[in-house]
Amino acid sequence: MTDFPSADFHQRVTDGFARQGAMRLIGAELTRIEHGTIEIELPFNDELTQQHGILHAGVISAALDSACGLAAYTMIDPDASILTIEFKVNLMSPGRGERFLFRGEVTKPGTTIIVADGRGYALTEGPAKLIASMTGTMMVVRGREGIAG
Amino acid sequence: MTDFPSADFHQRVTDGFARQGAMRLIGAELTRIEHGTIEIELPFNDELTQQHGILHAGVISAALDSACGLAAYTMIDPDASILTIEFKVNLMSPGRGERFLFRGEVTKPGTTIIVADGRGYALTEGPAKLIASMTGTMMVVRGREGIAG
Amino acid sequence: MTDFPSADFHQRVTDGFARQGAMRLIGAELTRIEHGTIEIELPFNDELTQQHGILHAGVISAALDSACGLAAYTMIDPDASILTIEFKVNLMSPGRGERFLFRGEVTKPGTTIIVADGRGYALTEGPAKLIASMTGTMMVVRGREGIAG
Amino acid sequence: MTDFPSADFHQRVTDGFARQGAMRLIGAELTRIEHGTIEIELPFNDELTQQHGILHAGVISAALDSACGLAAYTMIDPDASILTIEFKVNLMSPGRGERFLFRGEVTKPGTTIIVADGRGYALTEGPAKLIASMTGTMMVVRGREGIAG
Repeated sequence: MTDFPSADFHQRVTDGFARQGAMRLIGAELTRIEHGTIEIELPFNDELTQQHGILHAGVISAALDSACGLAAYTMIDPDASILTIEFKVNLMSPGRGERFLFRGEVTKPGTTIIVADGRGYALTEGPAKLIASMTGTMMVVRGREGIAG
Repeated sequence: MTDFPSADFHQRVTDGFARQGAMRLIGAELTRIEHGTIEIELPFNDELTQQHGILHAGVISAALDSACGLAAYTMIDPDASILTIEFKVNLMSPGRGERFLFRGEVTKPGTTIIVADGRGYALTEGPAKLIASMTGTMMVVRGREGIAG
Repeated sequence: MTDFPSADFHQRVTDGFARQGAMRLIGAELTRIEHGTIEIELPFNDELTQQHGILHAGVISAALDSACGLAAYTMIDPDASILTIEFKVNLMSPGRGERFLFRGEVTKPGTTIIVADGRGYALTEGPAKLIASMTGTMMVVRGREGIAG
Repeated sequence: MTDFPSADFHQRVTDGFARQGAMRLIGAELTRIEHGTIEIELPFNDELTQQHGILHAGVISAALDSACGLAAYTMIDPDASILTIEFKVNLMSPGRGERFLFRGEVTKPGTTIIVADGRGYALTEGPAKLIASMTGTMMVVRGREGIAG
C-alpha cells in the first residue's frame, strides 16, 4: 500500500483490465478508475444467463471480483500484484435489466491483505436496483513467478 | 425435497444446464448427474482468464455455482426451481491446467433452503489439484413468475 | 416485512435481546434501536479473548450476528421471527480496545430473506477503528414450533 | 507449514487453547488433537443461547473458529502464529442438544495462507446431527509484536 497513489495507477488498471480475457468474453467495460474505487459496466446479453434468463451468478461474481481486485490494485506499489484469496457474493434481486454497474471499493487497505466490498446494480429505467454484493479478501503478492500486473 | 428422486431429474438437469447461456459461453460440459451430485468440466481457454493468464475467479464461481445449483435441483419437486441466494468461494491454487473439473454436492437438503458444497480441480498430468471450494445457499422457489427450471 | 415499522418494534427488540443468554454471557449492551439499524456495545474483558489476548472472532461474530438479526427483526411482522441462515465475517484489525461497538443494518429487506451488513469498531482514544465486517443472510420464519421472537 | 509435524504440536495446541478466555467462558473442551485436525466439545448451557433458546450462532462460530485455527496451528513452524482473516458459517439445523462437537480440518496448507473447514454436530440420542459448517481463511504470522502462540 502507498499512502499516495502511484502516479500511473490509471494506466496500470487499464492494462490489467485489458489482460483479463474473461472481461472481454462477457463484454464488460471499465468505466471508472479512482484511488480505491473501480466501476465496471456490462450490457445484458443472452449469453450471460442462468436457466431463468437472468444474469448468471458467476457473471456477477466475475464483474464484482474484477472491480474489487482492481480497486485493491490502485492502492499497491507498481511492482506488486493482487490475487483474490476468497469472496462471498449475495444475490439480492434477479439480474434483470439492460445494463449493469459493478462498483468495487477498498474497505481496508493493507500491506499483505486488502479487503474490498462490491455492489452490483441493474440500470434500466428508474433508479439503479441493487442486485448483488461482494466482500472479497485480496492478497498483495510480490516477486512471484508468472504473476505480474 | 423428495426422499426419492423424481424419475426425470436427469432430463430436468440436462435441460436446465442447456438453458444456461453462461455455461455455453465459457465452454462448460455437464459430465455427471447423480441425486445430490453434479459435475461440470471445462477446457482451458484464453478467453477465461484474469490478468495473470489463469482462470478468472468469476469463471470458477460460474462453474461451481451451476454445479451446486443443479445438485440442489436434483433433490426438489419437478415443479419447483432453485435460486442461488449467496455463496463463498475460496481460491486455493492458481487455475492453471488444460482442463478443470467442478463438483457440486448437496450438504443439507431442505424444503426451503438447501446448502451445497463445491470443489474445483485442475486436471493435467498427475493427480487432480484442488484449486477452489464453494459453499452456497440455495432457495427452493415455487410458482414465481418467470422462474421455471 | 412491513413498509411502516410495527409500533412496538422497540419493545420486541429489547425483549428479543434480553432472551439471548449469549449476549448476557459476553456482557453486551443494546444501545441503539432504529428501524433497520441496531447497535450493540461491549466492554473489553479477559474472558472474551483468543490466544493472543485480543477479542475472539467468535465473540465478534456473536455481537455482529445479534446486531444484524435484530436489525432484520425491526422490519418484520410482530408474529414472525428471524433465523440466521449464514454469515461471513472479515476480521480486519486485532480486537484491541476498552470498548467495542457493533452496528447491524438491513441492506435488503424481504418477505422471506433479509440481507444485513454489520461493522465492528474498537472504541478507545481517538477515532473508532474498524475491526470487522459481517454480511449475513436471515430467514423470516412464521409459525414454526419453538421459534418465537 | 512443515511437512512433518513439529514434535510438540500437541503441547502448543493445548497451551494455545488454554489461553483462549472465550473457550473457558463458553465451557468448551479440547477433545482431539491431530496433525491438521482438531475437535472441540461443548455441553449445552442456557448462557449460550440466542432468543429461541438454541445455541447462539456466535457460540457456534467461536468453537468452529478455534477448531479451525488450532488445526492450522498444528501445521506451522513452532515460532509462527495463526490469525483468522475471515470465515463463513452456515447454520443448517437449530443448535439443540445436550452436547455439541466441532471439528476443524485443514483443507489447504500453505506458508502464508491456510484454508480450513469445520463442521458442528449436535450429540444427543441417535446419530450426530450436522448443525453448522465453516470455511475459514487463516494467515500464518511471524515476528509480529504481541502475537505469540
